[in-house]
Parts: sequence; structure tokens; C-alpha cells
Amino acid sequence: MLPYAEYLASLPKRHVGCAAIFLNEKDELLIVKQSYREGWSVPGGVIDALESPHDGCVREIKEEIGLEIPQLTFLIVQYERNFPNKAEAYDSVEFTFFGGVLGAAQIARIVLEEQEIEAYQFCSQDEALKLLRPTIGSRVRAGLEAMRLGVPLYTEYESH
Amino acid sequence: MLPYAEYLASLPKRHVGCAAIFLNEKDELLIVKQSYREGWSVPGGVIDALESPHDGCVREIKEEIGLEIPQLTFLIVQYERNFPNKAEAYDSVEFTFFGGVLGAAQIARIVLEEQEIEAYQFCSQDEALKLLRPTIGSRVRAGLEAMRLGVPLYTEYESH
Repeated sequence: MLPYAEYLASLPKRHVGCAAIFLNEKDELLIVKQSYREGWSVPGGVIDALESPHDGCVREIKEEIGLEIPQLTFLIVQYERNFPNKAEAYDSVEFTFFGGVLGAAQIARIVLEEQEIEAYQFCSQDEALKLLRPTIGSRVRAGLEAMRLGVPLYTEYESH
Repeated sequence: MLPYAEYLASLPKRHVGCAAIFLNEKDELLIVKQSYREGWSVPGGVIDALESPHDGCVREIKEEIGLEIPQLTFLIVQYERNFPNKAEAYDSVEFTFFGGVLGAAQIARIVLEEQEIEAYQFCSQDEALKLLRPTIGSRVRAGLEAMRLGVPLYTEYESH
């Protein structure tokens, strides 16, 4: 390993994740239920090594709901600090993109990832924000705000 | 370690970095010469563990040029993929913030970090983009574009 690579390897790293906002023509939000976690989420996940946040989100959308959406719109980048208990702490950088307004033909093509996603639904944005896990809800709330403003945002979020 | 923490630990991570754009009243860009690397840069560096990109950038500005700028404006988040040679590859997420337009009184308070920064100068944006290392230049170019547009941006950059 080169000295510079050694130096880089010594620096702190964190996970990078992604989430996608989809609406239907009634302005309702697409939410998904992951079989392995409590609460509802939106399509998304953790970015692979050497994969960009945008391309990781395209991949997760394809895997989780079966739709091919090649171009996503950047909405927010959120720095998250998590303290699940007193002994642990971790942080991550989370990107939220807008996937678009889905028409009936696209919705008919949704195919859920069998092992991981047990259901999806469209519901009002207020209702969705009640059902989403708090961390995901914070990203979606900020993403919807960025859409209203027409301007991408940088946000920070802490969970305990 | 909890099972979820174990799962998280298995996922890929990357460095997160920051850079700051400062202008003087003639619209010239502040650039700095790090003693340990070729080419010019701007204030910035790698974010510490459990430190937000914004707060990391505030810290780096204070360390490198001695100015206390408590509030920075988000300009761009850039995904970077680096291939220094055939055997190596690494990626990172880099935040660029605007630190403000520095007046004469603030410029007089600049104190360089003795060990790491050997010089600074203000120069025209075109000249600065020639002097900056290509990766840093790509961030500054996108950051100046975001300032012109008045809208933060998501960008991707690859270097070989």
C-alpha cells in the first residue's frame, strides 16, 4: 500500500445511504414495508463500494420495487448521527432523490423484492409521515420540503 | 455488539470530506498551499468520526486559516471515485460550502496552520482553477456554479 493510501485508511469512514420519494397522480407517497424491520420505509438502502449515491438509488429501486428509473432528481443530503444505546454511536450520510410521479401503467409494473419487501402502498403525505420509521420520515419530510422550495437542501438529524 | 450493529459493520463505508470557498471583495478566490502535497487547495479536509460535514468544515477553516466562521452555506455534495493506479480504487463523498466574502479586517486575521499550510493567496477564479489540484478544482468549479445558479448541486467526479 502506498503511504497516501495508508494515511487515507487511517481516517474515519461512514456508511452512505439513499432513499427515493415517489408520488402518484393524487400526490400520495409510495411507502414500503420491509419484512425484517419494524415500521414503514421508502425504497432505498446502503450504497455499494465504488457506487455513486445516484446509481445506488437506481439499483435499490430496481431491486425493491422492480421499476427502472434511470434518472433521479437530487433533493437532500442528510448527515445522521445515531445513538442506539449508551455504548454505541454511528453516523452516516444519506441522499434522498425524487423518482417521479408514477402513472397507472408504471404502478402496474411494480414487483416487490420477495425476500425483503412484504407490502407497498400509496398514502397521503401526512399519513405516510406517521407510518415511516422516524429516521426515514425525517428524510422524506426534508425531501418534500426541498421539492416545495425547488432547491436541494443539506440537513442534519440525530436519533436516540 | 448487537446483530443490527454487526450487519451495519459489514456494509461498505467511505471517507467524507469538506472544502470551503472564500472570496474577497474583488471576487477573487482564497487558495492555500499545503506543505505536504503538490498543487494548491482550499481550506478543508476529512470529517472526524461523529462530526457533521458542516461542523467539520468549520473546524478545518479554524485550524488551517485561523478564522471562526460559525455558519457556512451548503453549495455542493460531490461523489468522487479515485483510481490512483490499476490495483487501487477508493471513493468518497465531498461537501463544499461557501464561507463568505472576506473583508480587509477578516483577511488581516488569517493565521496559517504552521505545520500544514505554507502560503495562501487570493487570485482570480480562472487563475485559481489552474492552480488547484484537479479534484479540488472540480469541487470549486461546481461550487461557483451553484453560487451563480443560487441552487445547491449534486455532482460526480472521477479521477485517474
